Amino acid sequence: MNELEDLVAAYRILAAHGVIDAYGHVSLRSPKNPQRYYLAKSIAPEKVRPEDLIEYDLDSKPLDDNGRESVRERFIHGEIFKTRPEVMAVVHNHSPSVVPFSVTGVPLKPIFHMAAFIGEGIPNFEIRDVQKGTDLLVKTPKLGKKLASVLGKSPAALMRGHGSVVVGENLPRAVGRSIYLELSAQLQMQARLLSRKITYLDAAEVKASNPVQDYKRAWPPWREKALKDL
Amino acid sequence: MNELEDLVAAYRILAAHGVIDAYGHVSLRSPKNPQRYYLAKSIAPEKVRPEDLIEYDLDSKPLDDNGRESVRERFIHGEIFKTRPEVMAVVHNHSPSVVPFSVTGVPLKPIFHMAAFIGEGIPNFEIRDVQKGTDLLVKTPKLGKKLASVLGKSPAALMRGHGSVVVGENLPRAVGRSIYLELSAQLQMQARLLSRKITYLDAAEVKASNPVQDYKRAWPPWREKALKDL
Amino acid sequence: MNELEDLVAAYRILAAHGVIDAYGHVSLRSPKNPQRYYLAKSIAPEKVRPEDLIEYDLDSKPLDDNGRESVRERFIHGEIFKTRPEVMAVVHNHSPSVVPFSVTGVPLKPIFHMAAFIGEGIPNFEIRDVQKGTDLLVKTPKLGKKLASVLGKSPAALMRGHGSVVVGENLPRAVGRSIYLELSAQLQMQARLLSRKITYLDAAEVKASNPVQDYKRAWPPWREKALKDL
Amino acid sequence: MNELEDLVAAYRILAAHGVIDAYGHVSLRSPKNPQRYYLAKSIAPEKVRPEDLIEYDLDSKPLDDNGRESVRERFIHGEIFKTRPEVMAVVHNHSPSVVPFSVTGVPLKPIFHMAAFIGEGIPNFEIRDVQKGTDLLVKTPKLGKKLASVLGKSPAALMRGHGSVVVGENLPRAVGRSIYLELSAQLQMQARLLSRKITYLDAAEVKASNPVQDYKRAWPPWREKALKDL
Repeated sequence: MNELEDLVAAYRILAAHGVIDAYGHVSLRSPKNPQRYYLAKSIAPEKVRPEDLIEYDLDSKPLDDNGRESVRERFIHGEIFKTRPEVMAVVHNHSPSVVPFSVTGVPLKPIFHMAAFIGEGIPNFEIRDVQKGTDLLVKTPKLGKKLASVLGKSPAALMRGHGSVVVGENLPRAVGRSIYLELSAQLQMQARLLSRKITYLDAAEVKASNPVQDYKRAWPPWREKALKDL
Repeated sequence: MNELEDLVAAYRILAAHGVIDAYGHVSLRSPKNPQRYYLAKSIAPEKVRPEDLIEYDLDSKPLDDNGRESVRERFIHGEIFKTRPEVMAVVHNHSPSVVPFSVTGVPLKPIFHMAAFIGEGIPNFEIRDVQKGTDLLVKTPKLGKKLASVLGKSPAALMRGHGSVVVGENLPRAVGRSIYLELSAQLQMQARLLSRKITYLDAAEVKASNPVQDYKRAWPPWREKALKDL
Repeated sequence: MNELEDLVAAYRILAAHGVIDAYGHVSLRSPKNPQRYYLAKSIAPEKVRPEDLIEYDLDSKPLDDNGRESVRERFIHGEIFKTRPEVMAVVHNHSPSVVPFSVTGVPLKPIFHMAAFIGEGIPNFEIRDVQKGTDLLVKTPKLGKKLASVLGKSPAALMRGHGSVVVGENLPRAVGRSIYLELSAQLQMQARLLSRKITYLDAAEVKASNPVQDYKRAWPPWREKALKDL
Repeated sequence: MNELEDLVAAYRILAAHGVIDAYGHVSLRSPKNPQRYYLAKSIAPEKVRPEDLIEYDLDSKPLDDNGRESVRERFIHGEIFKTRPEVMAVVHNHSPSVVPFSVTGVPLKPIFHMAAFIGEGIPNFEIRDVQKGTDLLVKTPKLGKKLASVLGKSPAALMRGHGSVVVGENLPRAVGRSIYLELSAQLQMQARLLSRKITYLDAAEVKASNPVQDYKRAWPPWREKALKDL
């Protein structure tokens, strides 16, 4: 059960950091069955409790919803888990500083060590390339598949006019990356206002940062605070 | 009585999100009589209680003030309810990121799906077109009528050097639009600083978003938190 | 004693709004003797209690300090009370958005109705015009006199590389002006980033706003919250 | 023990002001032995308690870790204490507004009196000058020595793509400088957006401010609030 408490904590940590509001979500691949994942029912993230978690297969069909309402964009999670076997957690959010990058074509770059993973490349998903005239929500398997394909092997992808999706080999990494992606986007906007000549992390620095940056020091206090009132 | 509790919640939700400070207000058309509406007396929004709600006719004459002080700008609400029969709720606010758009002529555009309604057009009310030398407050029926006329069929209108007015077919929509109008204005300012070439939602995306975007997932937790200490 | 509780509230309101941190202060001319004023001892504003208030004459000599430490910049208050008989309250602060205007020569302008008083003119005090090589603190009668002279008949003055001073015919007005001066400065910076063509309040609108804008609706809830734990 | 409580307070004050998140740290030279310093174990700053403090020699070898995990970047502290005998406290942080200056070559300047110390010069540490392909962390004595050498006699140094290090002759000064360095960086970014012609504190003003600016009025209330729940 501990992993599911981790997922509950992830919802609340992301809400407390302003990364998700009423509309973001985070999933965990089942530790017992890689063909399954957990995602909360349609509910405000800061209120998620263990009993709100629903198990899905990778086609995002609920196995045990018992009348609980699934979120419409669950296909984001299922389709990414299909194409990225090493990924154990997926975050979808509308964190505010990331949206401006999604609509301008200005690429996010690795500006500081806490978000070095940006240097691995953050593609931008243009939903119109799959379907015109949507409400921008990834609410079909087809849209989810295309988003997963745009994401490719990257740690995150922007979604034009919508937000982003962030993945990790474990929950702390997906959560930590989401928090620092937002902060990094803020810093990059500010740096651009100061100067057009910015020194980003170079490829060797990005590569050296990847194995060490797991946000493992932050996770225990984040988790403890998030679950305080559970 | 539940609808009036919704209105109390609306005041507190808007205050908690920084959309209104001591000076904003939100009204609800009476569910029993479309020729009547409710608005709180002159009081800080975060403190509104059911007993602070006053019923008005559409000329904004109080029916039951019992000595409670009406807000001077109530004509905003009454005159809009007259011209927009489908509108059930009106928010007037000074949310900070919207003001810069009201004084520069830079149009608000639909930058992300949570505020797709902006794509329906947000006109700007210039009070000087009706009356010179005011304190900018819409405190007469004449000013209210002109504001309603500038608003026309739009979901919101800016008010130059003052703030905005936002409407909805129900309270959650008017409240949700007010919250995401503020956020969208922030995002648009940031995107403009990154680039002058911004990809906005197109007309088909705006149209597809209108029926689905009712902020219904957010409303229950917002309401619950707002009324916690009632 | 009620007026002194108002002054205690003013300290806490300004701290709660982020207008003053550990270093700002606010004074009240004595309601009984216009040749006297009250100012808190050197203490964090959010902790001020009635017993921390010291009475001063207009030369800023404490009448009853009883060993309590006076703030070094009290001359700001005494010298302004000398030259502005109608002023009953003076706020000195370092509110962040105001400082950039003090060092760039870009004038603050009346961008929205809540800070219409800016249209009466906000001069900028350059301490070097009186004395070179200071630590920028107005800690002598001579510096206070010059600041009062630069302020003249204005509702507020910037202090280069330091902050501002804001006055009012009563405490709510001086406090409200300080809060909305900060917000107005933010809005003006944002508007300038959107466009160089900004529509400010015109002279007639500024004049019409002066008598009505007393922040009287905001004061009771601000005060109540500030004194909750007194 | 009082000095160690001061250090606990410093961690919590910096966290409460948003200067450090899960990854910053602050050290205190031992009041009894200038060849020793104290630093918390690897733990979230807001949770630090006296029993989390570890004593180190100036080579950053723990004297009493008893299984507690040391932070990898402790060499920042030890190497600075070696070269700056007058320094009693060192803060390492990633405070957000400082990072953009570290990657653009735009120098931080003394824009307001609360951060006059910036006028003494803030050098920028480029880790690539010592070692290529790092994860940017100063986790060896060699990197620490070079950082200390770049810092020289300055009150602070930026660290490219990473954050900054700030020193003081006592804890309140190192903590106060860290808080106002962040604020000053914000103000300088805003001032630059208003105008390229900025009036900074001049050399005489910087010199006059140095002895007086010790943040001694702020320290007692900061400390009291930080240790409230100890």
